[in-house]
Parts: sequence; structure tokens; C-alpha cells
Amino acid sequence: MTTRYPAPTLEQVPEDIKARILEVQDKAGFVPNVFLALARRPAEWRAFFAYHDALMTPETVGRESGLTKGEREMIVTTTSAANQCLYCVVAHGAILRIYEKKPLVADQVAVNYRKADISPRQRAMLDFAMKVCLRSHEVEDADFQPLHEHGFTDEDIWDIAAITAFFGLSNRIASFSNMQPNPEFFLMGRVPKEKK
Amino acid sequence: MTTRYPAPTLEQVPEDIKARILEVQDKAGFVPNVFLALARRPAEWRAFFAYHDALMTPETVGRESGLTKGEREMIVTTTSAANQCLYCVVAHGAILRIYEKKPLVADQVAVNYRKADISPRQRAMLDFAMKVCLRSHEVEDADFQPLHEHGFTDEDIWDIAAITAFFGLSNRIASFSNMQPNPEFFLMGRVPKEKK
Amino acid sequence: MTTRYPAPTLEQVPEDIKARILEVQDKAGFVPNVFLALARRPAEWRAFFAYHDALMTPETVGRESGLTKGEREMIVTTTSAANQCLYCVVAHGAILRIYEKKPLVADQVAVNYRKADISPRQRAMLDFAMKVCLRSHEVEDADFQPLHEHGFTDEDIWDIAAITAFFGLSNRIASFSNMQPNPEFFLMGRVPKEKK
Amino acid sequence: MTTRYPAPTLEQVPEDIKARILEVQDKAGFVPNVFLALARRPAEWRAFFAYHDALMTPETVGRESGLTKGEREMIVTTTSAANQCLYCVVAHGAILRIYEKKPLVADQVAVNYRKADISPRQRAMLDFAMKVCLRSHEVEDADFQPLHEHGFTDEDIWDIAAITAFFGLSNRIASFSNMQPNPEFFLMGRVPKEKK
Amino acid sequence: MTTRYPAPTLEQVPEDIKARILEVQDKAGFVPNVFLALARRPAEWRAFFAYHDALMTPETVGRESGLTKGEREMIVTTTSAANQCLYCVVAHGAILRIYEKKPLVADQVAVNYRKADISPRQRAMLDFAMKVCLRSHEVEDADFQPLHEHGFTDEDIWDIAAITAFFGLSNRIASFSNMQPNPEFFLMGRVPKEKK
Amino acid sequence: MTTRYPAPTLEQVPEDIKARILEVQDKAGFVPNVFLALARRPAEWRAFFAYHDALMTPETVGRESGLTKGEREMIVTTTSAANQCLYCVVAHGAILRIYEKKPLVADQVAVNYRKADISPRQRAMLDFAMKVCLRSHEVEDADFQPLHEHGFTDEDIWDIAAITAFFGLSNRIASFSNMQPNPEFFLMGRVPKEKK
Repeated sequence: MTTRYPAPTLEQVPEDIKARILEVQDKAGFVPNVFLALARRPAEWRAFFAYHDALMTPETVGRESGLTKGEREMIVTTTSAANQCLYCVVAHGAILRIYEKKPLVADQVAVNYRKADISPRQRAMLDFAMKVCLRSHEVEDADFQPLHEHGFTDEDIWDIAAITAFFGLSNRIASFSNMQPNPEFFLMGRVPKEKK
Repeated sequence: MTTRYPAPTLEQVPEDIKARILEVQDKAGFVPNVFLALARRPAEWRAFFAYHDALMTPETVGRESGLTKGEREMIVTTTSAANQCLYCVVAHGAILRIYEKKPLVADQVAVNYRKADISPRQRAMLDFAMKVCLRSHEVEDADFQPLHEHGFTDEDIWDIAAITAFFGLSNRIASFSNMQPNPEFFLMGRVPKEKK
Repeated sequence: MTTRYPAPTLEQVPEDIKARILEVQDKAGFVPNVFLALARRPAEWRAFFAYHDALMTPETVGRESGLTKGEREMIVTTTSAANQCLYCVVAHGAILRIYEKKPLVADQVAVNYRKADISPRQRAMLDFAMKVCLRSHEVEDADFQPLHEHGFTDEDIWDIAAITAFFGLSNRIASFSNMQPNPEFFLMGRVPKEKK
Repeated sequence: MTTRYPAPTLEQVPEDIKARILEVQDKAGFVPNVFLALARRPAEWRAFFAYHDALMTPETVGRESGLTKGEREMIVTTTSAANQCLYCVVAHGAILRIYEKKPLVADQVAVNYRKADISPRQRAMLDFAMKVCLRSHEVEDADFQPLHEHGFTDEDIWDIAAITAFFGLSNRIASFSNMQPNPEFFLMGRVPKEKK
Repeated sequence: MTTRYPAPTLEQVPEDIKARILEVQDKAGFVPNVFLALARRPAEWRAFFAYHDALMTPETVGRESGLTKGEREMIVTTTSAANQCLYCVVAHGAILRIYEKKPLVADQVAVNYRKADISPRQRAMLDFAMKVCLRSHEVEDADFQPLHEHGFTDEDIWDIAAITAFFGLSNRIASFSNMQPNPEFFLMGRVPKEKK
Repeated sequence: MTTRYPAPTLEQVPEDIKARILEVQDKAGFVPNVFLALARRPAEWRAFFAYHDALMTPETVGRESGLTKGEREMIVTTTSAANQCLYCVVAHGAILRIYEKKPLVADQVAVNYRKADISPRQRAMLDFAMKVCLRSHEVEDADFQPLHEHGFTDEDIWDIAAITAFFGLSNRIASFSNMQPNPEFFLMGRVPKEKK
């Protein structure tokens, strides 16, 4: 598939977007493709990352969440695999490996989360996320019960659903526009102890 | 299904959000439930409506689109029906009727867009939107061809895909949280000539 | 889609069919398209409406049913939406609104009956109807239990299944032949108090 | 599954129904279960068989059809298999074998009509019937073209669709009520030359 | 579909394969097509029938199984019908009729095993087989419980799964290569008492 | 999921199986779990690996194939992902990376082969493999045409189908028995130049 939507260069993007990208580059060592690919439409870029941050780094918007950073990435990797989104599975699978310090978990949840080496709490979390991902119209009161039993509050459940919904958006944009993951992601977090 | 996520009152929301809600109320005559329902999480509210505006009112972000206002709502109504989202089908179906000045079209596309009284160009637009909605991982170069033949540019196609993706997010949040459409929406735009 | 199967005029149909159509016209104020569309084949017309009446107005064949008139139309609207039949959703949705005196209920069950404002008894009824509609081969003894708990007898359950099956037939004929609902249906029953 | 809807005895049914049943028994050598199973509701019985006859023996209602008797049964067997209806596959598979004088064809179309020993014309007929059976909402003008190429008229196509739709009704009633085929059907038409 | 992969003649196959085929011919009265169709690749033939025998005649490899011969064929017929494999449904349906001495059972399980005249134990066995056939990635601990309740050991369950998996392979090869069942199979076991 | 089917130790398996396992261990540096997991049933083990070798190393049975070793593993990885088989995706994805000398390709085809960096010939190969995997009953003459255009012979196509079918068997057994991939596989072939 050809690249129909070429990404701008760093020089072409507005200053606020450029600043964030440089910050990410400094931290990660490279610029994840999504940052430049979406920057061709600055207003959408700003909304996308504002939403992303509100859900994925709730502390930056003054909110706490009962989900760990690793659990949030686990939701992203699992539901993105259900949507067959190459970019998100590879990029967020990498972050998941790093946060959870488990080099195998990303491949496990991407292929079949039912066989993954995760806790029963995480399994319940992913069951709910997958229902929101694939059959949100069937979500009912009974679906909240198993999550409550594992200690998730209704606010935590909102997080699970909203992360799933947000990356469902991300998956569709990445797939239709043929966004490719950076090669760096494929290896990140696979070697247990890596030092810069 | 019980209301697990009660909406704040207008008094409880931050000033910027309150201002926008009052503006909407002034224009529509009532406050669509989504505005208060999402306001319980201000950061997400702001990102949601920033994204919404960037796609649905591109002129507010300095961008033009080859899609008419009615076509944008037609995408929302059709794909929200595929996701069986009660709130979005009813609310955006109402807006679609008003913009297109066709009192029957919303029900037509919601039940079966293939039988709707729309143009071949709109049919091609909805075929693509439905593929992004339901099978985005299968979108390929060949899917762009029929849209080009109807005069859609690649930027227009980005709009089709992004609107579909954004309301896929909206559908999932509305469904999981049991958001109900305001009764006012059900009748809006059905009587050909209504005057305030 | 072109009209491949033009409807006869009222003058062209046999007398018994004409009489019934005039009766309907007198009552409804217009002739629902299905009456003329099917009249091009009188033998099938007669069987169709005989079957319709036996199920939808059981009192006309000397039978009582535990389903209300509104519940019968609710089954039709919900399952016709599952089959994406434009004619039946619009026409029977209109009748449903009138019988139930609930202007919102038809849109609710058509988009997602799980989110509709209906009784638990009606929810159980629709769960069963949807299973007969979509997966009749999987119906088993256990599916009757929830209906019995809500007071439905086995005869009532036959009604639920037979109405679903009959309109499954109707849905397929209307869709394949591109039958369009009369414009009058779209607004019927939406304004709470309408007087002739 | 228990028999929740016991069939009446021949003595218990109205005279007109009894007369038809005796006629069938005389011809077939036994009473196919559907005749008594449905007779518990005489009005539905009469509508069902009137519809059946209008489609399956068009000459009895003064109509000709471009489909052979065998082709009509082939549609029933194939679509009933798609609906996994035990009664209809076995009963109409038997009649199909007899009409087509092909002892293998019923099993072939029931398991996978794409691998059956049938003509290209019949293959096109079954492709259309299966679309009406499973995805009638997607039928479009383009679906009529291959049928025209094989000599089917629009009236013949109505027959294909209506037979499929009618037996979709029959399949659902037989499955939900657990109607079992008579043992006699399983062997009928399998031995090439059988004489009474 | 043309025959793209012509079967070798008996003279063309290696001696060990020929010996087995002659043995089968002697017993059955004809050579089932699978034996010659696969013989065009001797190494695959040997592996295929070695696997077949290890599962279907465990006594030949010094193993006992809690499944009867009829139950093994019942699994093959039911899951092959789910895969719509003409060869396997017809061939193994014939063997099933003979082993179970029930002339109706093969058609019953092929059309809809839920309506078949089988024991609750066999129903549980087929529920598990169908899950392995269609959704093996969802098999979990809870799926073993109903089988244990009916007396199946974990080794018996391995047999159910492995037979399903092996014939899933067989189904795919037979379907893609258009393997046709011998006419003899269609009638085998249908007449209660047949003598050679 | 508990381990219901414990693998034997190397000491417990028959000599011929042990010899092969030691050979694999010597070459790979570890014993892939499938070798011991299946060895609990020696007859099935022997048939499984005989079939495996006949398809995956055709030169060992005196046959040539138009598929490269990498292409064979690409089929396995892609179709095993469709079946959500954790063991096979991880183990064969590793081998695929090594054979193709492309560290990214396994993740690409496992998530969405349509977006993978592969040749048009390989894309056609995988389209066919996926059809055999998911809808083998729909394979028809027309499906062979694109493969011929890319230079695949009918014998090569048999290889594609048979590899898909064989690993469909493998997927089902691995999933139902909860076979876990060795940790070594996850990293294999990801670092471009690795030396022993």
C-alpha cells in the first residue's frame, strides 16, 4: 500500500507540536511515527494527544487511576490486536513490555490474551475491554460485577472502556492510512536488562 | 441498566465547559446529554470536543473539507447504527435531517444505507465509512478508487475515515455508560417546515 | 436500486384484495405500500395477509394471545432491524409507537433493544425473538425458562417465534424487491396527541 | 429437547385440514409431521399451506414458473441447511432426490452446494437464494445480472427469493418447536429405482 | 470445479500403500476416494493414515480410548459438517450409521447436532468438539467440567480434540482439492439390515 | 489454565523420538515444547512429525517445492495468528525471522499480513492460505488464478493448502492443551546478527 498521507518533517509542524515531539524524541531516542503522521493536521493532533494524555497519563490532568501504567498498555495491545492494527500492537506492545518488565507478555496478549501469563484481575480487565472493543452495544450491568470483584471501581472501569474506545479510533486511523511502526519498537523491552 | 455515571449539573462544571454548553443550549434550545455526561471528566471533555470540532466543523480550525455538513452527519448516523449506539443514531440522525432537509434520510441510513435515497457519491462515501468502521484492517489502495471517481480527494477520504473513527470512540463510550439521547432529538427535523 | 417489480394499481387487483385495501386506506388514511406491492401475485397476497392476521390480530381467528398489540409490533420492529429491512422497521415502528403510546420506543428498539425503555418482561421477549431471528437452530429448552418466569405461556412463546419467523419472510421479500415505506409512516405516532 | 407443542391427532383437526392430510397420506404413504404439527393452530396451518402451494405448485394458483419442481426443492434444501433446520433438510432433501432423480444431490447441496453436481444455472440460482437467506439487506441490482444471463426472468427471481423467504419462516418454526422429520424421509429417493 | 489433482491408479502407488488400499477394498467393497487421492504424495499419505489410525483405531497403536467407535465417527461427521466438507460428511456419516446402527443419526448431526437423537454424554462431547473446531483459542478449564461429569477422562478429551483437529486438516484438503465422495457412501448404513 | 497434559521427560520417551529430540536440541540449543508435549502419545508424535517433515522439509521425502523455507514459515505464522494459537505464532514466527532474515516480518504478518512488508507473490500466497484456513469450503477455481499469475504451480498450491491445513491441526491441539512456547523463541531472529 502506498503512502497516501506523507508525514510532515519536524520543521514543518507548529511550535507546540514540535516541542512535544522533541521531548518524546529525547526520552525515547527516536520519534514514534504517529507523532509526525498525525501532525499534518495540527488541530486533530492536539485533540488526539490531549485525549491520549488524559487517559494514559491521568496524573498530568490531576487525576488518579486504579490501573497501573502497564495495565493501560495491556488494554491497548490486546484490543489493537483484535482490530489488527499493526502500528498500535507493535508500538504499545513495546511500551507494555517495558512497563510490566515482562518481555513475553506483549506477544502473549496480542496473539491470545486468554493464554497469557497475567493475573486474574488483568484477565477480567481484558475481557471487559474486548467486549467494549467488539460488542459495546451488548455491555450490561452484569459485565461490571466481575470487575468490582477484582477491586476495580466504576471510575477504573471508565478508564478501561475509554482507553479501549480511544485506541479503537487510533487503530482505524493507523490502518486506513497505512501507518507503519518504527523498527525500533520491535525489539524494545525484549532484552531483560538494557542500558542506554 | 442503571446510571452508573451520573452527569454533573451545569453549576458543577468548569467555566470553559459551561460557556460552551450555554452556547449550545442557546442554539439548540436544550443541552444534549453528551455535553454534561462527559463533563464529569473535564480533560477528556475538552479533548473530545476539540476533536469533534476539528472534524465536524473544519472551518473552526481553518480548514476546508470536500464533505458537506450533511454528509458528515450521514457518516455519523450510518456508522453509529452499525455500532448500535442509541445516543449517536438518534442525536446525529436529528442533525442529519436538519442539514440535509430530508426528513426521511436518517431512518433510511440507520436501518439500511443501501436502500436509502442518497446519491451514488454518498453511497460510495458510506461504503468506505462502513469498511473503516467494521473492517479497517482490510482497507487497501483499491478502496480509494471509487471515492476518487466521485470527486473525493485523499483529504476528503481522511475526513470520512477520521469521522468514522472518532464516532466509533463516541459510540463505545455512550453504549458502555448507557448514555440516553434527549427526547427532543427524536422529533427534530421530521416536520418539513418548523419555525421557532 | 430500480423498481423491478412495479405494484399494480388498485383497479388492477382482484375484488377481495381491493376490498381489504380500501378498508385499510379508510382506517390509516393511505395505502401502505406492502398491500399493493404484494398484490401483483394474488395467491401469495392472500396467504401473506391470512398469516399476518392469524398472528397479529389473533382475535380475528378466534384466538387469544398473552402478548399485547404493542408487544407484537415491538417484536416486528426489533427483529426487522436485525434483518436491516427498511420497510418493516419504518412501517411497524410507526404502529408500535401508536399502540404503545411511547413516541421514542420504536427508535430505541430498532437501534439497540438492550438500551430501550421497556419492561424486563419485554426484554426477555425480545431476547428470545432475536435468537429465533438470528440463531433459531440454537434454541433449546433453557431458552423457555426466562419467558415462563415473566408469565409467558408456551402458546405465547409460539406467538413470539411465529411473529419473528413471519416477519423474517416479510423482511426478505421487502429487501430483495426494494420495497420502500410510505413517507407517512416516518412521522406517525411521534407527536403525542394527534387528532384526525 | 422435550416436545412442548404436541401435535393433534388426525381426528382433532378441522375437516378441510383433515382432507388435505388424507390426500397427502394417500400419495406419500405417510403423513409428514409438519402437517399435524402445525394443525394445532388451524388459521396458521391454512395460511402456511396456501403460501406453500402458491410458491411450490404455482400451477395450482394459475401461474407458471421458470423453475422446475426439482429446482424449487433444491432451493429449499440448500437454504434450510444454511439455517440448520433438521426437518426441512431431511424432508425436502427427499423430495429433491425424487424430482431430480439424482440420489446424491440432496446431501451435496446440504453440505456444500458449491461442490454439488449441479448446472451453472442452478449454481447461480443457489448463490442468489443464499444471499436472500443470509444477507437479504445486501441484495442489489448487480445480483440480478448473473441470473438473467442464465435465463431467469425477474418473475423467476421472485420465485427464488420468495421460496427462500418462506422456508426461512418454516425453518425457524420447525427449529424452535423441535419438529422432527419422519423416519421415512431419510431413505426416500436414495434407491434409484423404487416401485410401489 | 475441475479436477486439478488427478488421483493415481492403484498400479502407480508404492507397494505399502497399495497393500493397505487392497485391504480396505476387500473390506469395504470399493476404494474410498481419499486413499487414492492422497496417494499422489506418498509421504503425506503415510503420515495421514498413521495419524488417522492412531486416533480412530487406537487399539492398533496399543492404546485404549473411552470413546466408542461410533462416537469417534460422530465427532468427525459433526465437525466436518461445520466445515462444510462434502467428502468427510458423506464418507464418515456412512461409517457412523454403521457403527451406531442408527440409520438417521448421521443426517441429524450433520444438519444440527443439537436436535439429534443422541445421549446427553454425546451432546457434551459434540459441544466440546465444535468449540475446538470453530473457536479453539477460547477453550478454557471450564470447558472440561461438563465432560468430566459425563465420565470422560482427560485422555478421552484429548481424543475428542485430536480427532476434531485431524479431520479439520482432512476437511481443508478435501475441500480445496475438490475431493468427491464415492457414490457408495451415500446409501451405506441406511437400510437397517443389509447382508453381503 | 492448568497443565492438564504434562509432558514426559526425555528419559520417558521411546528411543526413536528421543533421538530426534536430541538432534533438534543440538541444533536449536533447546527443546521446543511441542516435541515433548506430543511425545506422551508416541504414535501421534510420529505421525505428526512425519507429516510436518513431508510438508516443511520436502527434500527429506525426495520432493522439491516452489515455496522457499521462509514462505512456508510465513504461511504457518499468518494462519496460526488467524487461529490465535500462541505456541505456533511465537515458535514459527521465530523461525520465519531467521529464514527470511527479516526481524520485523513475523510480527507484521501475525498482526495484519495485509500491511506486511512482503512481495506481491507472498501476498497472493497468504490470501489463499487464509481462505483455506478460514473458509476452505468456499475455495473455487477462481482462487487458483492469481497464484498461477505469480508463478505458483498446482503442486505449490497444494503445499500452501496442506501446510495451512496441517498447522490448523497443530493450532487446535496446542490451544486446547494450553501448550506454551519456550521463552527462547520470543527473541530469536530479532537481533540481525547473532552468533553462537
